[in-house]
Amino acid sequence: MTAMTMPMLETFPAEINVDRALLAEAIDELISCSEACTACADACLSEPDIAQLAKCIRTNMDCADVCAATARVLSRHTGYDANISRTLLEACIMACRTCGDECYAHADTHEHCRICADACRSCEMACGDLLTALE
Amino acid sequence: MTAMTMPMLETFPAEINVDRALLAEAIDELISCSEACTACADACLSEPDIAQLAKCIRTNMDCADVCAATARVLSRHTGYDANISRTLLEACIMACRTCGDECYAHADTHEHCRICADACRSCEMACGDLLTALE
Amino acid sequence: MTAMTMPMLETFPAEINVDRALLAEAIDELISCSEACTACADACLSEPDIAQLAKCIRTNMDCADVCAATARVLSRHTGYDANISRTLLEACIMACRTCGDECYAHADTHEHCRICADACRSCEMACGDLLTALE
Amino acid sequence: MTAMTMPMLETFPAEINVDRALLAEAIDELISCSEACTACADACLSEPDIAQLAKCIRTNMDCADVCAATARVLSRHTGYDANISRTLLEACIMACRTCGDECYAHADTHEHCRICADACRSCEMACGDLLTALE
Repeated sequence: MTAMTMPMLETFPAEINVDRALLAEAIDELISCSEACTACADACLSEPDIAQLAKCIRTNMDCADVCAATARVLSRHTGYDANISRTLLEACIMACRTCGDECYAHADTHEHCRICADACRSCEMACGDLLTALE
Repeated sequence: MTAMTMPMLETFPAEINVDRALLAEAIDELISCSEACTACADACLSEPDIAQLAKCIRTNMDCADVCAATARVLSRHTGYDANISRTLLEACIMACRTCGDECYAHADTHEHCRICADACRSCEMACGDLLTALE
Repeated sequence: MTAMTMPMLETFPAEINVDRALLAEAIDELISCSEACTACADACLSEPDIAQLAKCIRTNMDCADVCAATARVLSRHTGYDANISRTLLEACIMACRTCGDECYAHADTHEHCRICADACRSCEMACGDLLTALE
Repeated sequence: MTAMTMPMLETFPAEINVDRALLAEAIDELISCSEACTACADACLSEPDIAQLAKCIRTNMDCADVCAATARVLSRHTGYDANISRTLLEACIMACRTCGDECYAHADTHEHCRICADACRSCEMACGDLLTALE
C-alpha cells in the first residue's frame, strides 16, 4: 500500500496551520480504522454467534462512518476552520472509544474483533494527540 | 420523492429511546442538507467568480460529509449509545453553522448559495432540537 | 422534508446535458434508497432471526454505499463526463436489484424489508430511466 | 500507517471466493486513491489558477466517492454476490481513468496532481487485475 497522505500534505500549495506529522498520523489512522471497522462488521455477520454481536456490528458501522468523514475533513486545508475539526475529532474519539470497548469484549473469541479494537485504540490516540495540538 | 425515514422508524422491531418525530425530522434535514451542500460545491465550481468561492466549496464538502455520516448514525437504533449521537450532533451543528454562514455571504450573488444556506440553518435547528431531547 | 434536489438543479449556473426532471427523480430515489437500506440493515440487527438475515444486512450496506456515491456523482454537473455516470448507474442498478430481491425474500416476515425492497425497486427504475436517457 | 486490510482478510471466519492478495491490493489502492483525490481536490482549491482546475476538482470528488464505496463493498464477504463487485469495479476503473487523465494534464504545473494521477493509475490497474480474476 502506497500511503498518499504525507506526499499530498507536502505538496499542498498554501500554509497548513497544524503540525503535518500529527495530521498525517491522524488521517492514516482514521483511514485504517474505518477499513478495520467495515471489515469487522462484515466478519461478525459471518460468525455463528452473530446474535451476540449485533451491538458490535452496529458500533463498527458507526465508527467506520465517523472515521471516514473525519479523515476527509482533516484532508482539507483550504479556508481552514478549527471549530469543525475540533468538534468532529471529539465525536470521532467517542466513536473509536465506544467501538474499541465493544470489540475488546469479543477479542478473546474473535481475532477480527481484537485487531479492530487495536485499530480503534490507535485511532483514538492519534485523534487525541491532534486535538491537543489544535487547542 | 418518497421519504423513507419515518416508515423505517415505525417498523423498527425494538424500542427507540428517542422521540421518533424529532429523530425523523433531524435525519431528513441531514439528508437534504448533505445533498444541498454537494450540489452547491459543484455549482460554485461552475461560477465565473470561482476564485472567491474556494472557502465556500471547501465548507460545503465538509458539511456534506459530516451530515451524511450523522444521518447514518442516527438511522441506527440497535445497541444505542447516546454519547456517539450527542458528540456527533455537536460536530454537525458546528459544520452546518459554519457552512450556513459562508453560504449566506454569497446568497445575494448566487441563488444556490442562498438555498444551501437555508438548508444548513434548517438542519442546524433540527439537530439542535434533537440534541436537547437527548440531554 | 424539504427536498433540495430540484431547487439546486434549477439554480445551477451552467448547462446541464440531461433532462433535469429525470435527474432529480434519480437523485431523490438514490437518497431515499440509501436511507432505507441503512435503516433496514440496522432493523435486521434487532430481529430475533438475525442469523437468517446476515446476507440481507450485507446487501443493505452495499446498496446504501453505492446509492450514496451515485447520488453524489449525479449531483455534479461541472466538467460532466457521461462515462462515469453511465457505468456507475449500471453498478447501482445491479446493487438495487440484488438488495431488492434479498429484501423481498423477507418481506412477509419483516415490514422494514418490504419497505426497503420497494425503495430498491423504485430506485432501480429511476436509475434505469436516467441511464436510457444518457445513452 | 498500519494497514488493516490483510489482517482483517486473514481473520474472516468463512470462505472468501477471491484471491486474498489481489483483493487486499485492490482495497488498499482504493483507499489510497480516495484519500489522494480528496486531498487533490482541496489542493486545487488553493491554487492561483483555480479557474482552470474546476473539472479536475469535480473529477477528484467523483473518484474519491466511487473509490471509497468500492473499497467498502470489496471489504465485505458475507453473502458474496459477484455481480455487484464486477459492475462496481467497472465503474471504479472508469472513474480512476478519467480522473487520472485529468490530473496528468496538470501534472507539470501541480505536483499534487501528478501524485494523484499516479494513485489513480495504480488503483485502476489493481481494480483491473481483480476484475479479471472475478470473471
